[in-house]
Amino acid sequence: MRGVYLVTDRDLCFGRSLEDVVLKAVRGGVSCVQLREKTLSTKEFLSEAIAVKELLGNFPVPLIINDRVDVALACGADGVHIGRDDMPYAAARGLMGPRAIIGVSVETWDDVMFFQDLDVSYIAASPVFATPTKTDTGKPWGLEGLRAIKSFSRHPIVAIGGINESNARKVLEAGADSLAVVSWICSADNPEMAARQLKNIIEG
Amino acid sequence: MRGVYLVTDRDLCFGRSLEDVVLKAVRGGVSCVQLREKTLSTKEFLSEAIAVKELLGNFPVPLIINDRVDVALACGADGVHIGRDDMPYAAARGLMGPRAIIGVSVETWDDVMFFQDLDVSYIAASPVFATPTKTDTGKPWGLEGLRAIKSFSRHPIVAIGGINESNARKVLEAGADSLAVVSWICSADNPEMAARQLKNIIEG
Repeated sequence: MRGVYLVTDRDLCFGRSLEDVVLKAVRGGVSCVQLREKTLSTKEFLSEAIAVKELLGNFPVPLIINDRVDVALACGADGVHIGRDDMPYAAARGLMGPRAIIGVSVETWDDVMFFQDLDVSYIAASPVFATPTKTDTGKPWGLEGLRAIKSFSRHPIVAIGGINESNARKVLEAGADSLAVVSWICSADNPEMAARQLKNIIEG
Repeated sequence: MRGVYLVTDRDLCFGRSLEDVVLKAVRGGVSCVQLREKTLSTKEFLSEAIAVKELLGNFPVPLIINDRVDVALACGADGVHIGRDDMPYAAARGLMGPRAIIGVSVETWDDVMFFQDLDVSYIAASPVFATPTKTDTGKPWGLEGLRAIKSFSRHPIVAIGGINESNARKVLEAGADSLAVVSWICSADNPEMAARQLKNIIEG
């Protein structure tokens, strides 16, 4: 669970296809891809998920579906990411099975506490910094918050929200295992290079 | 598959709770309940589905979930209803298993033909009449269209769209096995009586 974690947003891809951006990002070294779609129909979402799953088949990169367990099951994804408005974790685990990757968002200390004794695959500290990509979030954790989570939680930590080349090292030093990005890759002139820059920081 | 088939729409319940309307409708004799929610979060939809499933536990009335196979699986619903923008039928059947009720909407002859050799539980001719409840539909089938479907299709037919007490008998005579209604029950002053009126017409 260490690496660059891409969360997709088709609206930030500036007319490029999502598959194109994902492929470039994977070539640049992202270690995990989460498809997040809040407006597509089930049919469209599943169709996209199947296409991305096929594309990822050539790489050792798991596919995570945001929220939709049905889409994840139907496309053979490796897991789901569960936010606060999504299915309860226990229900998702029951449907996905014991081997699936199931990550959860933690926006408050109550969330961190709640998941401490559950077998989640990771907790995503959201947001680390304020970000325009996702505005329905809680107060940013900041580096201090991240450090506090790290000292308490037994789970791998994915940091998300406002992460870029200039703050990545500090986020890692504060305890993040993975760096999740949306616009840093989706909106990059060169998604492959953007992914590689973060990967190099993580491995550096 | 003969009876009154309630499709829910919380916006048409005029401030009454959905559970309240469903309970009254079931007391009035509906034989099947489909929960349709296009705006709720997964968490809210599942919470509602679990509540309605529990409520229906005392009656021999199956619970069908519109579109969302994940919600259906998580709440233990009896089946799903699949529209043209939803998961493909084969994928839904694969996830729901061979015993689930899986109904599909047919809006064109292509749809009717497509499902003829598949093991769908029913086809829903949609809409039979023009209706303000759902505007993203094809051209109404009308009674002639319903008769034509009946003479061709091997599947039970659920008629939906603009059905009420005054046209119910004709819809049945044209070949419908079930009468699906939304506003006729959800918006009725007395949902129990509205359901019973249609049930009495079906039972002749």
